[in-house]
Amino acid sequence: MRVYDLIQKKKNGEELTPAELDFLVQGYTNGTIPDYQMSAFAMAVYFQSMTPAETAALTDAMARSGDTVDLSCFGDLSVDKHSTGGVGDKTTLIVAPLVASLGCKVAKMSGRGLGHTGGTVDKLESIPGYKTTLTGEEFLSQVSEIGVAVIGQSGNLAPADKKLYALRDVTATVDSIPLIASSIMSKKLAAGSHSIVLDVKFGSGAFMKTEEDAATLARAMVDIGTECGRNVTAVLTNMDIPLGCGIGNALEVAEAMQVLRGEGPDDLRRVSLVLAAHMVSLSLGITVDEAMVRVEDALDNGHAWNTFCRWITAQGGDPLVCQDPSRMKQSSIIREVRAPRSGYITHMNTEKIGEAAVVLGAGRARKEDDIDPAAGLRILKKTGDLVHEGDALAILHTEREDAFEDGAARYLDAIAFGEDAPAAMPLISRVIRAENK
Amino acid sequence: MRVYDLIQKKKNGEELTPAELDFLVQGYTNGTIPDYQMSAFAMAVYFQSMTPAETAALTDAMARSGDTVDLSCFGDLSVDKHSTGGVGDKTTLIVAPLVASLGCKVAKMSGRGLGHTGGTVDKLESIPGYKTTLTGEEFLSQVSEIGVAVIGQSGNLAPADKKLYALRDVTATVDSIPLIASSIMSKKLAAGSHSIVLDVKFGSGAFMKTEEDAATLARAMVDIGTECGRNVTAVLTNMDIPLGCGIGNALEVAEAMQVLRGEGPDDLRRVSLVLAAHMVSLSLGITVDEAMVRVEDALDNGHAWNTFCRWITAQGGDPLVCQDPSRMKQSSIIREVRAPRSGYITHMNTEKIGEAAVVLGAGRARKEDDIDPAAGLRILKKTGDLVHEGDALAILHTEREDAFEDGAARYLDAIAFGEDAPAAMPLISRVIRAENK
Repeated sequence: MRVYDLIQKKKNGEELTPAELDFLVQGYTNGTIPDYQMSAFAMAVYFQSMTPAETAALTDAMARSGDTVDLSCFGDLSVDKHSTGGVGDKTTLIVAPLVASLGCKVAKMSGRGLGHTGGTVDKLESIPGYKTTLTGEEFLSQVSEIGVAVIGQSGNLAPADKKLYALRDVTATVDSIPLIASSIMSKKLAAGSHSIVLDVKFGSGAFMKTEEDAATLARAMVDIGTECGRNVTAVLTNMDIPLGCGIGNALEVAEAMQVLRGEGPDDLRRVSLVLAAHMVSLSLGITVDEAMVRVEDALDNGHAWNTFCRWITAQGGDPLVCQDPSRMKQSSIIREVRAPRSGYITHMNTEKIGEAAVVLGAGRARKEDDIDPAAGLRILKKTGDLVHEGDALAILHTEREDAFEDGAARYLDAIAFGEDAPAAMPLISRVIRAENK
Repeated sequence: MRVYDLIQKKKNGEELTPAELDFLVQGYTNGTIPDYQMSAFAMAVYFQSMTPAETAALTDAMARSGDTVDLSCFGDLSVDKHSTGGVGDKTTLIVAPLVASLGCKVAKMSGRGLGHTGGTVDKLESIPGYKTTLTGEEFLSQVSEIGVAVIGQSGNLAPADKKLYALRDVTATVDSIPLIASSIMSKKLAAGSHSIVLDVKFGSGAFMKTEEDAATLARAMVDIGTECGRNVTAVLTNMDIPLGCGIGNALEVAEAMQVLRGEGPDDLRRVSLVLAAHMVSLSLGITVDEAMVRVEDALDNGHAWNTFCRWITAQGGDPLVCQDPSRMKQSSIIREVRAPRSGYITHMNTEKIGEAAVVLGAGRARKEDDIDPAAGLRILKKTGDLVHEGDALAILHTEREDAFEDGAARYLDAIAFGEDAPAAMPLISRVIRAENK
């Protein structure tokens, strides 16, 4: 088998076999296939795309390129959740203990934030003492006991994807649906859960700007997972507006705790319930309606909250944080941004709001940057709200005066005002399942 | 300027500016742009193509990436000829002294053969003593005196093309018209001649299999040359049948000498006259008809032949070869291949015939291989001829019995027989000039 022929075949729009894709992925991972051939191949894929069978075979090969997590001890109960990345998206902190309280097994590895979107591991580190690294044994035994453990991505998980993504990032070949879908799913497959719920976001704060593109990506990922023997459901959710009100690590943890105690913003509660219901449905093999009844109960009767506290404590987090979130770090500057005019908020550029939070200290512009766990912002007025000049729009949390100025300017730049109320947007646009095929 | 943005721009089908292409070419040549970005770019060009302005700018940048030959001492008289490669194509040996005898200046750098097509430098080396390397001064002074010098490609001519071609060769990005055209023309521009006649071949023995593809390539090359201030004409010639009868280095030199003495195969004479007429027309600024009269005269009155002998002698070639071509090396095995059946020859797979000659020792399968100057074959029957079983079809020249067997089998495999005479093919299908635009 020659790489040249495989590039040529893809260039000509022909379908590669699983053996050919495996040859390509393993050769690239072990270095026998050079970057310059792989980048030409990726560009050919950009133009000629891949069939569902090819995409699944590529993903499977990348998933097998390094370590894989064995969760077979949990039978079919293991369930994972993945978000394509959003602003203010703290649903993992809610749904993981919520579904665990109902008997599902959430053995989750999460990433860190980069750019305008946050990462679950960064959020959890706002809780003093929380350990994002566990041994394999600790990890599995905690999931077995409490139903949930969330750690940072460790080991050599899908190294082919890591290498290929870095290459795509510098060769303008990121924006290919089969390559995006296989990149995400290779890590999910390697992470071992039998069921996977994908939160595919669309809108100004998401990687996919339109609902149409998000649906295409969701379909590709569901097809991959199904082809590889996993239960997968994708939920398309709106990211044209930040989810909830808190953006920034400790602020998001606090808001997630509110939802787990039956309070908190309604949009965040609704998205969390839907994601959790799909996770429970796949994991326990019950209908989504039945699962919805159970997850609502678990939120209302305190079981989800209890599981959250047990989980955080088990992973070394300060148990007093559960009683008093203000034990997490607080910013020295906490100050309002006020409306420069009266009118309806007609749109929020959610990516820019995420960038405002980064400027305040909540995220990383570069991989090496440190994060301030307390920094971020709390939104007081959202799209559709009528405001008067001078009303507080949001409260910014930061350590530095100049960061506040920069963050406030960016925040205001992200908000559009108008005379008329904008049309309401659906929060959850559709659900894509394997059965829809 | 970032390479990423240029790849992205081309991927999206936008036009790059000359400054952007220059940045890309110079950066790639000096190593600041890595192979993996350049191969992604080349694949994007394969899919999105390039405008004539982009192709010319790319070519110009590659031509300027290394040394360039200054032929300004010859004013507008300098003229070059380039063939896209064929089997039995010894026209350079004929047209170079022919046009030189009429006052044109042919300061030519030629390549070696690879695969089924031959190279002029290899052919000239069949003449004992011929030097394919001259100093710059010797080269120019010989052209000044005799009108012609032909040497091997020397120096650092269009290194960007060399590097990019090697990359395309392993990333399945060779077959892109703008990239092929810019590759050929960058070397021609760097080689300095004011006028260039391109012999673009099509058919089973050529790189371009169809006349249509050859015409597209010819148009692209003529446009590049014109845009870069050169006089360029392309002649499309048939390579669905070997040109002339001799294939192999010494055999081809001998056949070229026949034509220069007014003998030799008619097809070779006709193609040589047409190419020479276009060269003279561009170089002297006269009509092609008028030029044709002069080149026919120069062949008939012996001036072309005299110039050939002076040229070969000036470059160190044994003068006695001109009197007696058999002073070049002769093969020890010279044996006929006979017709296995009666019928018309309906087709000759010219690439396969070229490969038969390589097997006999006339060419290189790999760059490192040695060539046997005497090896090759002489065709006795061509497409359209009626033969009887047992008739000699060709005479093979080689040193080894097993090479003869292999060569004979390949030769016969290349010949198709039928009951009916095939339709006649035009030898020269069309001429593409700058004015046709």
